[in-house]
Amino acid sequence: MGKDKAMVIFQPSGRRGEVPKGITLIEASRLLGVDIESLCGEKKVCGKCKVRVEEGNFEKFHVHSSKTHVSPWLEEEGKFISPQEREQGLRLGCAAKVEGDLLVFVPEESRAGKQVVSKAPRDIHIKHDPAVKLYHVKLEKPSFEDPTGDFERVARELEKSYGLKNLRIDLHALRQLPEALRQAEWEVTVSVWMDREIIRVRPGKVKDHYGIAIDVGTTTIAGYLCNLQTMEVIDTISLMNPQCKYGEDVMARITYQMTNPGGLKRMSDDVIEGLNWLVEEAVKGTHPPKKKVKASEEKEKKEEWIEEPEKGKEYLRLAREDIEDITLGGNTAMHHILLQLNPEYVGLAPFPPVIHHSLDIKARDLGLRINPSSYVFVLPNEAGFVGADNVGVLITEEPYKSDETQLIIDIGTNGELVLGNKDKLISSSCATGPAFEGAQIQFGMRAAPGAIERIKIDPDTHEVDYKVIGREAWRSYSRPEEMKTKGICGSGILDVLAELYRAGIITKTGAFNKKQKSKRFRRNPETNQPEFVLAWAEESSIGKDIVITQKDVRQIQLAKGALYAGCKLMMRRLGIDKVDKVKIAGAFGTHVDREKALIMGLFPDCELEKIISIGNAAGDGCRAALLNREKRDEANWVSRNVEYIELTVEGDFQKEFMGAMHIPHMKDEFSHLEGLVSPEILHEN
Amino acid sequence: MGKDKAMVIFQPSGRRGEVPKGITLIEASRLLGVDIESLCGEKKVCGKCKVRVEEGNFEKFHVHSSKTHVSPWLEEEGKFISPQEREQGLRLGCAAKVEGDLLVFVPEESRAGKQVVSKAPRDIHIKHDPAVKLYHVKLEKPSFEDPTGDFERVARELEKSYGLKNLRIDLHALRQLPEALRQAEWEVTVSVWMDREIIRVRPGKVKDHYGIAIDVGTTTIAGYLCNLQTMEVIDTISLMNPQCKYGEDVMARITYQMTNPGGLKRMSDDVIEGLNWLVEEAVKGTHPPKKKVKASEEKEKKEEWIEEPEKGKEYLRLAREDIEDITLGGNTAMHHILLQLNPEYVGLAPFPPVIHHSLDIKARDLGLRINPSSYVFVLPNEAGFVGADNVGVLITEEPYKSDETQLIIDIGTNGELVLGNKDKLISSSCATGPAFEGAQIQFGMRAAPGAIERIKIDPDTHEVDYKVIGREAWRSYSRPEEMKTKGICGSGILDVLAELYRAGIITKTGAFNKKQKSKRFRRNPETNQPEFVLAWAEESSIGKDIVITQKDVRQIQLAKGALYAGCKLMMRRLGIDKVDKVKIAGAFGTHVDREKALIMGLFPDCELEKIISIGNAAGDGCRAALLNREKRDEANWVSRNVEYIELTVEGDFQKEFMGAMHIPHMKDEFSHLEGLVSPEILHEN
Repeated sequence: MGKDKAMVIFQPSGRRGEVPKGITLIEASRLLGVDIESLCGEKKVCGKCKVRVEEGNFEKFHVHSSKTHVSPWLEEEGKFISPQEREQGLRLGCAAKVEGDLLVFVPEESRAGKQVVSKAPRDIHIKHDPAVKLYHVKLEKPSFEDPTGDFERVARELEKSYGLKNLRIDLHALRQLPEALRQAEWEVTVSVWMDREIIRVRPGKVKDHYGIAIDVGTTTIAGYLCNLQTMEVIDTISLMNPQCKYGEDVMARITYQMTNPGGLKRMSDDVIEGLNWLVEEAVKGTHPPKKKVKASEEKEKKEEWIEEPEKGKEYLRLAREDIEDITLGGNTAMHHILLQLNPEYVGLAPFPPVIHHSLDIKARDLGLRINPSSYVFVLPNEAGFVGADNVGVLITEEPYKSDETQLIIDIGTNGELVLGNKDKLISSSCATGPAFEGAQIQFGMRAAPGAIERIKIDPDTHEVDYKVIGREAWRSYSRPEEMKTKGICGSGILDVLAELYRAGIITKTGAFNKKQKSKRFRRNPETNQPEFVLAWAEESSIGKDIVITQKDVRQIQLAKGALYAGCKLMMRRLGIDKVDKVKIAGAFGTHVDREKALIMGLFPDCELEKIISIGNAAGDGCRAALLNREKRDEANWVSRNVEYIELTVEGDFQKEFMGAMHIPHMKDEFSHLEGLVSPEILHEN
Repeated sequence: MGKDKAMVIFQPSGRRGEVPKGITLIEASRLLGVDIESLCGEKKVCGKCKVRVEEGNFEKFHVHSSKTHVSPWLEEEGKFISPQEREQGLRLGCAAKVEGDLLVFVPEESRAGKQVVSKAPRDIHIKHDPAVKLYHVKLEKPSFEDPTGDFERVARELEKSYGLKNLRIDLHALRQLPEALRQAEWEVTVSVWMDREIIRVRPGKVKDHYGIAIDVGTTTIAGYLCNLQTMEVIDTISLMNPQCKYGEDVMARITYQMTNPGGLKRMSDDVIEGLNWLVEEAVKGTHPPKKKVKASEEKEKKEEWIEEPEKGKEYLRLAREDIEDITLGGNTAMHHILLQLNPEYVGLAPFPPVIHHSLDIKARDLGLRINPSSYVFVLPNEAGFVGADNVGVLITEEPYKSDETQLIIDIGTNGELVLGNKDKLISSSCATGPAFEGAQIQFGMRAAPGAIERIKIDPDTHEVDYKVIGREAWRSYSRPEEMKTKGICGSGILDVLAELYRAGIITKTGAFNKKQKSKRFRRNPETNQPEFVLAWAEESSIGKDIVITQKDVRQIQLAKGALYAGCKLMMRRLGIDKVDKVKIAGAFGTHVDREKALIMGLFPDCELEKIISIGNAAGDGCRAALLNREKRDEANWVSRNVEYIELTVEGDFQKEFMGAMHIPHMKDEFSHLEGLVSPEILHEN
């Protein structure tokens, strides 16, 4: 590397490259296609471009102080970055300059292209029966005739009024008890977990209490703040899984743990820190926004933060301690890593998890800062590669109560499949990899503004028209500079591939058709790999041609092949050749073009209207378990009553997989698609 | 105070006084009557005189470093005091010199007069049924046919082999599970708590496991290390309650909490630190002693510790993690302070405790470092002033199973009384104060070498003969300098008072008889208080006359009056005027002269042979609960089925109390004692 250049890597996107020394981090991010928020035009006055310098920030680590990779701290940064944040390595992207190799983490709130696909909650039918319930009691004061202790006094009344028997109490709640009782004349509201344990005592009569259902995905963590009394979802908070820096997928994380002493604890600590951030965000969102003002009086501190409530709006003003319950779901590896259970054997045949059953763990034992006596309910795992997230999907969709044979596909960073009905359910997982989420694709990105989500390619001219997220008008109705195209998101990738195939640019085997003469088709001068230009540099916000490469096509083929082969082998196991319903969970399911998915052979033949998207069903399952304790038992039941099929040891797997990589899968199965694609392509050899 | 003098306070004894600046801490201790161990004659080579400088050690607190109250650290101290201990303020008493006011804590192991009254365990009959049990299982390895997870694999086998159903597992034990299973070819020994929760998994077949029963007294903490399999008591460890520095008795501790912000947590932290020390001592005692040697090779560290096992002796070599269960008992205030429950209301009428019921608390939640998944069982409380310690006494003595009417007296720093039989049991407490333990008596001390334990006073000459602990020969058979008398212990005090009374030196009302002409009787020149010399300075090791003052006599009268009045009122409640048996628990009971106790009117009339000492029955109760889980249920049952009588609100309390302060109580009740005491004294008005 030249003396005047430095390598900069941005996380969590992983974008990296050489940049000239001396430019700001925001300038570097622009060169590398990472968007950092900046409202003030990099004048160091809006404070939106906070980033965390993770490596190379020797101010933080106090080593090699003679050689720093980032420019010195500026006084202006102190307006937006607290001493504590500074300690953690936070800098303003417009102030800090590259002076050597750097690893920079861009926090969710500083990303300009915020994720559009919020993991919004669906309306799901849940019977109100939360694990934590409120009970209100009024007591007689102690006297010489009845000097019964505080706890027994409360327990006696709870039994008398509500029939709660054999109650116990957590030590932290017990510590609150004497003061709570005496604060409001022996009238208290008691939070009871599973009608078994007192976990909080508040003076007087209180009506509401809260919980958070959290879906810990390999890439994204989504939390739903719920009122446990009304079941209302008050807020949805999501963040990147902070473990992404250790590797994109499950196997990479497991490998990190195996090759780095202390790696398991480090990854666990990171995700716990993320969850604490999530709780903090959820709680903060119930307070009025704050504004920094100059203090009117001559005081020592010249500035202070004051609240700016919206007119007529009421704020719940929750504190961390108001969160009385948390449910957690995730795939088996995420589950294990979070709990610091060795995930190594989950990655080794025959893939036994450390535990299937759900766990009730004190939040404090995990380092989660909520009501100190509260439990976290961790959903059970089905198998090594079908985890608590899939159990969440199942208790939401309840295929075990259905006559119809359903195929439920949850495409996250891994594919999880369930097939069956009330008579029998089987599950399996397939290594789709993260291609459907836009990862491992050269210009792949999350579903955020600037991402190509729909595309059309003219079969004759090979000219391209497309639409990006955040802009209504298609390319053909826009001036190039209006597009600000940045990359391709997961659902767009499928569209691209289907169009490339329909236009004859790629063949059934996925290879680029060498005969074409389009000026968009070329070989990359550096890698010598074939690639096809989707958007020219002038249309992009990153100043580069946005292309899809042969390698990208192969990644998608591998993903779809794994998924299709998985579905196929499961159907053979159940002895069926058609399913009644295909349900697609996850963000991918919400945005995928079902028709294109069928053309591409993502999953077996099914009538178009029988394919439905069920959104973040894993998250919905966590929410169901939060609001209804019977769902917790149901989760344990179903986790042990779904038969897990290890696809890779099925005899025909390799053959099915190879066949399924073709586009579309097999011509005879797609006869009903005639008309949708040009006949010469469908029957090409 | 003079410029050349400084105030030094030694803890836990509380001895204090001015000493010349510049003398060593050992020299100061000698002047103030505190004995610090020193084998080498203060040559800084034995390391036995370690003390902790608690206040005034500004090296430790890094404040006002310009002014220190203790002389600088000497290199020689480093041989015996690790950098970590130094950080805690440890110094050698023979090296550190007084340069200003100091508070010095003398650890148990550095006290020259080690407590003789060990709280040794009695043989009590306990059915073997510990809360934590070991189960050994051999498992099949996971396979594609049976990829069941680790926990379910173990649980399934435990159900099959031992009938254990619905087992859960603690997170920490779960974290050990995958490695433990794979380390010895899927053969493990599992520790299960209450047949409900797996708390430890060890590879292979292991036979033994251990627990500690701990009696947390106001003054002394005693722990019994037990083999949970064989029930054998392996070791008894005792220490002063580190809270003594906040006050001698229960009310002083409660007051400290009320007047010092953070005081509750501080006291709790101190006792937890004490318990961790106790565990460490228990564990260390199972290893061979270590000796410091010079390393033979030329190495960087020139000295190292090597083990010196006794020939033919086997050592268990336990680690903290081998302690799988702990039971704790203590009076209600000690219980509350340890658990950080506000003890304020325990000290305010009608004295309701925060909780009666027993508690199962994870050791880690209390900061106790043992097997990380283990629970601590905290015995239940009867009432505000009759705590878990008394419950321990009851489940050991089982008066609720007896036909005989028993009076059980536990004299610690407070007096706890139980009266009744299988039909009815009542309890109460009386504020005896710590006089019977030697506290609040000018020359009072613990039952340690040099303490007067027996005494005889000639009624004619008023000459004194006595015996001290640690020396067989009485004073009359010794040269004065051989006695090395230091003070009076609890049981000795009663002896002294009875003799003073018998010899006519004090009257029935407790006042010194002014008519006597003994040269031992005098008024203290400073306080002008009457006092009687028990031992002259030449017989003492502290260079002072050892006296008993009028104030001392009053303290003992108050204590015995409270005790007697309590017994009396309880008998009236039950409508009886005689009890079948008097049981005296505690160290006091072990050493008290029953005859003298009757003369003095400590408790109601009873035949001499019906008075029995039951030792540290509170500690025995903790041991019973450790080794038999049914005793835990029994403890909860009895704690709620003993009727607590608040004596101070009984109508006649004041009258009974006043009357009971006389020596002896009432002449008509002591008619059978005629002959034991001279008639003129018994019938004195």
